[in-house]
Amino acid sequence: MSATNLAKGHLLWYIPDGYIPPESSGQLESHESICVLNCNAEETQIYVTVFFEDRPPIERIEVKLEGRRTKHIRTSGLEKDGEHIPKGVPYAMEVESTLPVIVQYSRLDATQPANALMSVIGYPIS
Amino acid sequence: MSATNLAKGHLLWYIPDGYIPPESSGQLESHESICVLNCNAEETQIYVTVFFEDRPPIERIEVKLEGRRTKHIRTSGLEKDGEHIPKGVPYAMEVESTLPVIVQYSRLDATQPANALMSVIGYPIS
Amino acid sequence: MSATNLAKGHLLWYIPDGYIPPESSGQLESHESICVLNCNAEETQIYVTVFFEDRPPIERIEVKLEGRRTKHIRTSGLEKDGEHIPKGVPYAMEVESTLPVIVQYSRLDATQPANALMSVIGYPIS
Amino acid sequence: MSATNLAKGHLLWYIPDGYIPPESSGQLESHESICVLNCNAEETQIYVTVFFEDRPPIERIEVKLEGRRTKHIRTSGLEKDGEHIPKGVPYAMEVESTLPVIVQYSRLDATQPANALMSVIGYPIS
Repeated sequence: MSATNLAKGHLLWYIPDGYIPPESSGQLESHESICVLNCNAEETQIYVTVFFEDRPPIERIEVKLEGRRTKHIRTSGLEKDGEHIPKGVPYAMEVESTLPVIVQYSRLDATQPANALMSVIGYPIS
Repeated sequence: MSATNLAKGHLLWYIPDGYIPPESSGQLESHESICVLNCNAEETQIYVTVFFEDRPPIERIEVKLEGRRTKHIRTSGLEKDGEHIPKGVPYAMEVESTLPVIVQYSRLDATQPANALMSVIGYPIS
Repeated sequence: MSATNLAKGHLLWYIPDGYIPPESSGQLESHESICVLNCNAEETQIYVTVFFEDRPPIERIEVKLEGRRTKHIRTSGLEKDGEHIPKGVPYAMEVESTLPVIVQYSRLDATQPANALMSVIGYPIS
Repeated sequence: MSATNLAKGHLLWYIPDGYIPPESSGQLESHESICVLNCNAEETQIYVTVFFEDRPPIERIEVKLEGRRTKHIRTSGLEKDGEHIPKGVPYAMEVESTLPVIVQYSRLDATQPANALMSVIGYPIS
């Protein structure tokens, strides 16, 4: 891994405000995505840890991401040992990567027929 | 507290745009949340100071947060000596923590039957 | 000004995406705000420079902000020598301050009866 | 180029969550913009590289930006050798500039008659 690759992102990102809206009533379905960009030539291994308000975290759910590709990961699809993130519950995420990546988080809330959107660049630990 | 813990966040965060929408007309109620993630093993003590346009701040409202947990704190529920944040008034927040945490702020505006959402990662002082 | 004061923010902030929606059709009026937090004990002097796509900037519009106060500045109210920011035109802003502050930018778009919101922490030059 | 100019931004920015909504049903058309601010006195040359989930990137689409101007670039208008970004497909962007600039990304989703907005400051590599 070259010095240039190292510079294109971080290995550890945080998203404190996670929430999968429990309902959808419009044309689109409520969902959230962790959008990861891997500018490196090689595949990277991603580990998502999910924190809750009232119970222990789900640790290190694995996702693979090819080199020079992006992946928009639906949080509702994350799963480990049969456990997944429940709808309608506040949570937070740690996104770890073996190679440096850039992470953005977006939510589409379609609880009402009219959509609402929010997005943040994750918080990197440098 | 280990060096690793120290790295996972900051002790002081700022959110300049606070505003609790005074009305709700849809299925959901207008609200704001400060979403805090504590990756440390130990509980942290959080102090929220609220700044206004035309009067002195409300200083250091206390909130506790367990280790390896997140808390999505409704700003309308913050209270000190009977004082709370009034609805429909611009304000700003300082979020201090005894252990390093990560802070995100989100607002759901349900003034109209259709929701609007906004979110930012707080601004850390490094 | 103490070292502690110096640490609580930056002197120079940027917001590349400014746009005052030309229409409002709902209960609220479309608008944008620059939300500034001054944690210092003393008043700070703010200078907003407005950049456009096709003409020279409006330079250093002055705004005052008291110590330990926030101000949510409507961009439509900014004015210098009779010049103001026109509606419906893409622009960008530089926010300079004599003391360190924290800057967030938010837009409420009420073009439709249902609102849309967006917000970013400004980009500080460190 | 002076040291002062060098400080006003970065040469390399990332936006992991790109998506051009395929439909518009309201008064406004769904679109995304990369908003770039060039505070330098001289013109800068911008190169946008577009990453996808399942195929190689479109490399270095060129855009010019005059000195002391902003440009709000519609991503749907980016084009190289007849290739452009398809609607309804997740993608990510790298924004490179010969002079330091500041980059913000915003999306207006008008899939529903009521708009939704989201915005982030791009992620700079420092």
